[in-house]
Amino acid sequence: MVLCGPSPVAMVALLHVHTSRVANLREPDTLQLEPSTRVEEYIDSFGNRCSRFLAPQGVLRLWNSTMIEDSGELDPFSPDARQLPVEELPPDTLRYLLNSRYCETDRLCNIATELFGKSGSGWSRVQAVCDWVHEKVTFGYHFARVTKTALDVYTERTGVCRDFQHLAVTFCRCLNIPARYVTGYLGDIRVPRDPNPMDFSAWFEVYLEDRWWAFDARHNRRRIGRVLMAAGRDAADVAITTSFGAANLTGFKVTAEEVDGAGLPATAALPWPSGTASGPEGSRS
Amino acid sequence: MVLCGPSPVAMVALLHVHTSRVANLREPDTLQLEPSTRVEEYIDSFGNRCSRFLAPQGVLRLWNSTMIEDSGELDPFSPDARQLPVEELPPDTLRYLLNSRYCETDRLCNIATELFGKSGSGWSRVQAVCDWVHEKVTFGYHFARVTKTALDVYTERTGVCRDFQHLAVTFCRCLNIPARYVTGYLGDIRVPRDPNPMDFSAWFEVYLEDRWWAFDARHNRRRIGRVLMAAGRDAADVAITTSFGAANLTGFKVTAEEVDGAGLPATAALPWPSGTASGPEGSRS
Amino acid sequence: MVLCGPSPVAMVALLHVHTSRVANLREPDTLQLEPSTRVEEYIDSFGNRCSRFLAPQGVLRLWNSTMIEDSGELDPFSPDARQLPVEELPPDTLRYLLNSRYCETDRLCNIATELFGKSGSGWSRVQAVCDWVHEKVTFGYHFARVTKTALDVYTERTGVCRDFQHLAVTFCRCLNIPARYVTGYLGDIRVPRDPNPMDFSAWFEVYLEDRWWAFDARHNRRRIGRVLMAAGRDAADVAITTSFGAANLTGFKVTAEEVDGAGLPATAALPWPSGTASGPEGSRS
Amino acid sequence: MVLCGPSPVAMVALLHVHTSRVANLREPDTLQLEPSTRVEEYIDSFGNRCSRFLAPQGVLRLWNSTMIEDSGELDPFSPDARQLPVEELPPDTLRYLLNSRYCETDRLCNIATELFGKSGSGWSRVQAVCDWVHEKVTFGYHFARVTKTALDVYTERTGVCRDFQHLAVTFCRCLNIPARYVTGYLGDIRVPRDPNPMDFSAWFEVYLEDRWWAFDARHNRRRIGRVLMAAGRDAADVAITTSFGAANLTGFKVTAEEVDGAGLPATAALPWPSGTASGPEGSRS
Repeated sequence: MVLCGPSPVAMVALLHVHTSRVANLREPDTLQLEPSTRVEEYIDSFGNRCSRFLAPQGVLRLWNSTMIEDSGELDPFSPDARQLPVEELPPDTLRYLLNSRYCETDRLCNIATELFGKSGSGWSRVQAVCDWVHEKVTFGYHFARVTKTALDVYTERTGVCRDFQHLAVTFCRCLNIPARYVTGYLGDIRVPRDPNPMDFSAWFEVYLEDRWWAFDARHNRRRIGRVLMAAGRDAADVAITTSFGAANLTGFKVTAEEVDGAGLPATAALPWPSGTASGPEGSRS
Repeated sequence: MVLCGPSPVAMVALLHVHTSRVANLREPDTLQLEPSTRVEEYIDSFGNRCSRFLAPQGVLRLWNSTMIEDSGELDPFSPDARQLPVEELPPDTLRYLLNSRYCETDRLCNIATELFGKSGSGWSRVQAVCDWVHEKVTFGYHFARVTKTALDVYTERTGVCRDFQHLAVTFCRCLNIPARYVTGYLGDIRVPRDPNPMDFSAWFEVYLEDRWWAFDARHNRRRIGRVLMAAGRDAADVAITTSFGAANLTGFKVTAEEVDGAGLPATAALPWPSGTASGPEGSRS
Repeated sequence: MVLCGPSPVAMVALLHVHTSRVANLREPDTLQLEPSTRVEEYIDSFGNRCSRFLAPQGVLRLWNSTMIEDSGELDPFSPDARQLPVEELPPDTLRYLLNSRYCETDRLCNIATELFGKSGSGWSRVQAVCDWVHEKVTFGYHFARVTKTALDVYTERTGVCRDFQHLAVTFCRCLNIPARYVTGYLGDIRVPRDPNPMDFSAWFEVYLEDRWWAFDARHNRRRIGRVLMAAGRDAADVAITTSFGAANLTGFKVTAEEVDGAGLPATAALPWPSGTASGPEGSRS
Repeated sequence: MVLCGPSPVAMVALLHVHTSRVANLREPDTLQLEPSTRVEEYIDSFGNRCSRFLAPQGVLRLWNSTMIEDSGELDPFSPDARQLPVEELPPDTLRYLLNSRYCETDRLCNIATELFGKSGSGWSRVQAVCDWVHEKVTFGYHFARVTKTALDVYTERTGVCRDFQHLAVTFCRCLNIPARYVTGYLGDIRVPRDPNPMDFSAWFEVYLEDRWWAFDARHNRRRIGRVLMAAGRDAADVAITTSFGAANLTGFKVTAEEVDGAGLPATAALPWPSGTASGPEGSRS
């Protein structure tokens, strides 16, 4: 990732795997910056490993490369996972039932009830949400905009990854199913290679029975090799980089590859193409 | 507080003083429910003491009464408190710089910079924000609505307590000053008695130098005896009660009174008037 | 109607019956102002009889009283009235298919198609729209706000007269049925008397077969004695009074009564109560 | 212009010069369609020459080519043109003071007053509006979206032609200056050639003294050779094509060239490139 700012600017990056996956790392998961810059690491209230630093004036390169062990299996499928009544949910899942910037439950609750009120409960209801969003929303990079909310996606029916997940997350919350927005790596493993340059991916997780489960309203199919990096209430919480001042992302590359047990690095990020990609960046002021 | 639901409904109430004020309690701070109902207490990610319970069908009364020691002094005033650069802020304050449901920093940043970009920094800049909001926004209970955001307040220039604070919070965040929305008790101590029935109050806090400081864009004057109950990113995080299903608030009364060292209870909440008040309730579905 | 402004202010009032009903007038339809003020009359592009004047500083009283002949029959009911394909519609109905301030067809078209795409065409489709809006939206004067759009009504499910009609109008337009928002007198004739003070009423009209037909998503029943005053794309076009500067409506009274052939005046508007009513006023700056 | 629909669809096109410029035509201004299709012409309430037709299934080509006489002078400049008080404005200009779909005066009036309340009146105030919009808003084709309103432009500070004009129009209306949105031809005459393919252009007009005057918040400079095609309250009224059903614009080309008195055709539109351009199209359902 190549950033360029006209003056020094504070930044926070979420470029590590999530604390819940640290045990699977087979190589160090270290963020590197060039020119060398002091980085402070901390864990936020969502359990995300964050890196804060003062980006110097001019060009800054960030990269990370690691290897992680994965089951190699498709996303878990557990149609009998039970939807807990709200009074039985673990307290730390309750915040994923509330309103957030891009998931306006207060504006979409009536609609969610009308659309999915009769779709059973638990897993089948979440699947009904994914089916609906996947069918109704058209994907396109040019539909992205930083202020787009779930209600916008519901009315415009267009968007990128994050937009599909925001709408699905909002519907689930309206139905009293805790839902969180997540970002991570999702390589083209055992699926046709996507001709577009790889980007970080977004999907979402719901809490059923006794754990979080991955769903993906964009692709709406079980996949292999999701590597969770960050989770939050919506994209505002898990921007790959947030800059607190003027900064431009001028280059950007993500790769994720499968290796066997002996293995080559699963991710590599050199060198960068020129050009501009604005997807993962959360900019402030 | 009197709630009435057509069927049992899960609820979360924030009716305790905040963990940061527990040391000042001089009487137990216990939530009482009638009919007697099992309550689970937990502390959320913001440090708020939350009570979760399954409200039974029909009428439920909730009340709390306690006594708390207070300095009896006006809100601290510290015009030299320094605004920290983002790279020096404590990590747990950083989430109070981000977008949230009712504080859309992504839509108000340009405006904040134009209005306050030349207002010094730190305390004087926060005060400039409060002055602006206090002067430009007209108070009125009939201007309240549950979906009203900071941008709505900025364009409509009307609102209740929470609306004043949402706009001020958003401006501060846009200016890289951590700001959080808080609710609590604010009695009419050493000020003319407000003829309206007392309600829970909302104000906001900013992080300067090494601590949080209270500001209040609604009253825009230093006050005595604020008792913090809950803090969060905005009103979505700190609704006095959130019901996950149909429930109506049918009666509501708040009192806060000053006592001397020998003291009568500072708060009492008996009996309830009939009538409807919708201010403090966060309803879901 | 009593207006009060701190300085002279230009105003436009729509307090005459519509040009399409002039032939039914049995008494002069004259707007009176006190103190006496020069009034310029003109007909706008929608066929509405408009009165423009410079309201003097201080208090201005406006009133009008006339008698109009009406069939005394319920709103026409013509379930076989055919929905014309767009290429056959009279050209001057086409503007009632477009987007307008409070009727955002661009945001509600997908939704309209999903909700009503299978509801037949023509009369039965319009009736399906009215049934849906009438059932889903809750009436209440405190839900009114000047900026409320059809999309707001769709998500919030609350509103006054104008909000019900805005949503129904928008749905009809999305379904390629020309729909216009209208205001007028609607007395409680042959229906139980509404305990609230009478106000001007809003309903809407659709173009089917070869004419405009009255529908009313608020009451959703055929009524007697609608007297059309003004028609437009939405409430922005037909505010009873629009002031181009500061003015307050301080009193307001509407009456409409049935008379027999010999007849007493059907409307009278003296004297005014004190108090504030903001319903019919469109204010600017 | 090349359109392609999966089934026959009704359309309205605004591809003629405006009635106010007909006297300057030196060649017939005739819309041609291939395959040959019956076209009905009518003049809408804004004085625009509209063409309605039923586009057949499959590919439809529309083109028009004419020659018009122009003064060859820069846009008129008349800094002394007086702003009329509202009570003196011609009645048919009053609708250009009201709210419309993309120009929400009700949400921007306070802001307009704060920004421009002290900018003199009349011409200098309009120029102050243009200067502000031109300076603050960044142009880019990828910032376009069909639902973008003046308030969106004010908060996002990005847009295309139409967005610049919508914001300027709204500010002018809030200041009681009638303002209308217009589209037309604007060739690169006596200015550096724009490397982007030519498109129809949008600018706006305000009513001062006794006539309409052209302003352009996008370019913010006087230009030669504007040819007015259509005027309305905002882009909703003057879409180059509006389709009442599914249709895609698959190719699109505009040219405008200066000729001398002996002259070659000033506009030509053959042949079409392939590709997609969505700018001028207003699509319905």
